[in-house]
Amino acid sequence: MATVRLWTDEEVSADPRVRAVFDDIRATRGSDFINNFWRALAGQPALLERTWASVKQVMIEPGTLDPLVRELIYIAVSTANGCGYCIHSHTAAARAKGMTAEQHAELLAVIGMAAETNALAHALQVPVDPEFAVS
Amino acid sequence: MATVRLWTDEEVSADPRVRAVFDDIRATRGSDFINNFWRALAGQPALLERTWASVKQVMIEPGTLDPLVRELIYIAVSTANGCGYCIHSHTAAARAKGMTAEQHAELLAVIGMAAETNALAHALQVPVDPEFAVS
Amino acid sequence: MATVRLWTDEEVSADPRVRAVFDDIRATRGSDFINNFWRALAGQPALLERTWASVKQVMIEPGTLDPLVRELIYIAVSTANGCGYCIHSHTAAARAKGMTAEQHAELLAVIGMAAETNALAHALQVPVDPEFAVS
Amino acid sequence: MATVRLWTDEEVSADPRVRAVFDDIRATRGSDFINNFWRALAGQPALLERTWASVKQVMIEPGTLDPLVRELIYIAVSTANGCGYCIHSHTAAARAKGMTAEQHAELLAVIGMAAETNALAHALQVPVDPEFAVS
Amino acid sequence: MATVRLWTDEEVSADPRVRAVFDDIRATRGSDFINNFWRALAGQPALLERTWASVKQVMIEPGTLDPLVRELIYIAVSTANGCGYCIHSHTAAARAKGMTAEQHAELLAVIGMAAETNALAHALQVPVDPEFAVS
Amino acid sequence: MATVRLWTDEEVSADPRVRAVFDDIRATRGSDFINNFWRALAGQPALLERTWASVKQVMIEPGTLDPLVRELIYIAVSTANGCGYCIHSHTAAARAKGMTAEQHAELLAVIGMAAETNALAHALQVPVDPEFAVS
Repeated sequence: MATVRLWTDEEVSADPRVRAVFDDIRATRGSDFINNFWRALAGQPALLERTWASVKQVMIEPGTLDPLVRELIYIAVSTANGCGYCIHSHTAAARAKGMTAEQHAELLAVIGMAAETNALAHALQVPVDPEFAVS
Repeated sequence: MATVRLWTDEEVSADPRVRAVFDDIRATRGSDFINNFWRALAGQPALLERTWASVKQVMIEPGTLDPLVRELIYIAVSTANGCGYCIHSHTAAARAKGMTAEQHAELLAVIGMAAETNALAHALQVPVDPEFAVS
Repeated sequence: MATVRLWTDEEVSADPRVRAVFDDIRATRGSDFINNFWRALAGQPALLERTWASVKQVMIEPGTLDPLVRELIYIAVSTANGCGYCIHSHTAAARAKGMTAEQHAELLAVIGMAAETNALAHALQVPVDPEFAVS
Repeated sequence: MATVRLWTDEEVSADPRVRAVFDDIRATRGSDFINNFWRALAGQPALLERTWASVKQVMIEPGTLDPLVRELIYIAVSTANGCGYCIHSHTAAARAKGMTAEQHAELLAVIGMAAETNALAHALQVPVDPEFAVS
Repeated sequence: MATVRLWTDEEVSADPRVRAVFDDIRATRGSDFINNFWRALAGQPALLERTWASVKQVMIEPGTLDPLVRELIYIAVSTANGCGYCIHSHTAAARAKGMTAEQHAELLAVIGMAAETNALAHALQVPVDPEFAVS
Repeated sequence: MATVRLWTDEEVSADPRVRAVFDDIRATRGSDFINNFWRALAGQPALLERTWASVKQVMIEPGTLDPLVRELIYIAVSTANGCGYCIHSHTAAARAKGMTAEQHAELLAVIGMAAETNALAHALQVPVDPEFAVS
């Protein structure tokens, strides 16, 4: 149950500003499926436009990090933040981009290891080594 | 200022159990430098041994994810958890493994984007799409 | 599914200590509806009494911050902490206090923006400017 | 100690893309002071441009939420995320926009209260009341 | 709905590596019941083995902290991290080890209090007293 | 560097409301030392009074959980929330109440283990077993 109403395709079609974003999501992804995240944002068009523009730039446009690697990083952050929706949507996206079961297992091992050592470093309040300074 | 005493090389040398771990860290990494995290853990040898064994298995042993990619995932989790020490040590490690300035910039963009959409998905309480189900 | 049993009105009526708190919640809010949070706390009367007394003082008693603004702040914290129940209950409370769709959209934009820049500041480990010092 | 180099005014002046952003920050804020967050982002110009554009739109452009209220929300999120830099910079910003000591005290009371009840709701796993559904 | 398939007893029986872990979980706990966490990990056998070995060592082997106290600490961390599954499984485990309703109430009071003062200390950016230094 | 001014003993002495709280802290703890947390809260007397009353009730008054166990729980929450100040002050408090090096090591092992399995349960989105239901 969301805190806002999820927009149907009919409602989206009737609103040119929202429809333009949904059309671009469909064209960019090459798929008719629009997931609930965007339907929940549809009632807030300025936020919808800015969020989609950023996601498109950060996750999809060519860069030096492989798109699959970006998905793994996204899953890592979403897991640390405990965002169930984001974990689901980006695990699905990573699989669609070729993530194997072995890669998923290694991803989880690194995420779990990092969470554990983060906690230990916090509990020990370890001072940063001067060797880590940027020259 | 740590919540425990950081062990010096002299103290480590005098304790066979701790010395064995430190020797393995040095041999595995091919470097004499031991960072403060391990010096802070030295007073808790069982935890030191288990943590190093896990880190070695998860971060260093061959697998399907590139060691640099594992570092990027580690930084992502550490950032979401706000662990300054871990962010410093793994940003340094990622650079040592070849992370370029462009890759660092893209990493930060993905981390920031994920943090923002995690917050939006939480605030909207977006229900998980059935399309994400594992078959 | 809760980790404790939710108290029914019948059980509340039979326990004078719990009933006194529930009566005060109803009188203070001018509504018969008691949400599940309080029914879950009912089995722990000392915690129930202290929590309600604090909520009443902090969220309801007159002060320099408008009650709606306090709800927005509450939603912001609950979103950052990923508390679905609290996001739902305080989004409903904010709407009952007059939050418009435009205000909700702006609230989410600020929350998302803050989450993103929090992550960037963490990843960059930005040192605090001396100009921010309190004189 | 940051994980990146902080840009000096001289370096900024020599880079037209970064200088354009810094010029706009100064013009928008009506102040010559540029805080370290932007100096840390300067080495990543695409991220710098997108972040400043978003901050400007979300925090500064006219809307239905008062600019001071937006700062209070920002502080609330930053506190829940434990971002020391952001807490400092936005507490200073809130004071510059007129936050009184009384308002600061009430802000902290709401933040603390929300953090406490978030924890209780999590520990109790309170189910969302159907009454909170959006019609 | 999980992001991976939960293994049935039939599937576990057919895989010697996974079966060995499940057999040890059953023998160690003296119960046939295997909860979903382990069924979700079954598809990642190296992670399954390492995680169970660590849980067994940390939570079950004799030590200076009472097993019930370890469960209370586990619940505290899981609550702060907002992990609903872990809160449920370890609240059940604590009850099985004798946690009374009074102890549960006190546990929640401490967790809530800590969450509140953590937020206040963050918002105030309180500097660490030199008196807390380890000698 | 705090976001508020820390009150000196002279300032406290001149303000009857704040002095009453500080006097009670000293009497309750049997020590003249007042740590910075309370000096930072002194400028917000209503919050100071309520926070101290709660801390006193939750952490110090007799109950079914040993005072040292309460400190361990407090450290666990503070570590998960990454609150350096709170980790320092409550690690010192736990030592003052008798926490041994072995207990500290076991505490950290449980905290780290919980953080790791929290992350794994989040990443796997493990559904809660019906067996955990409260009867």
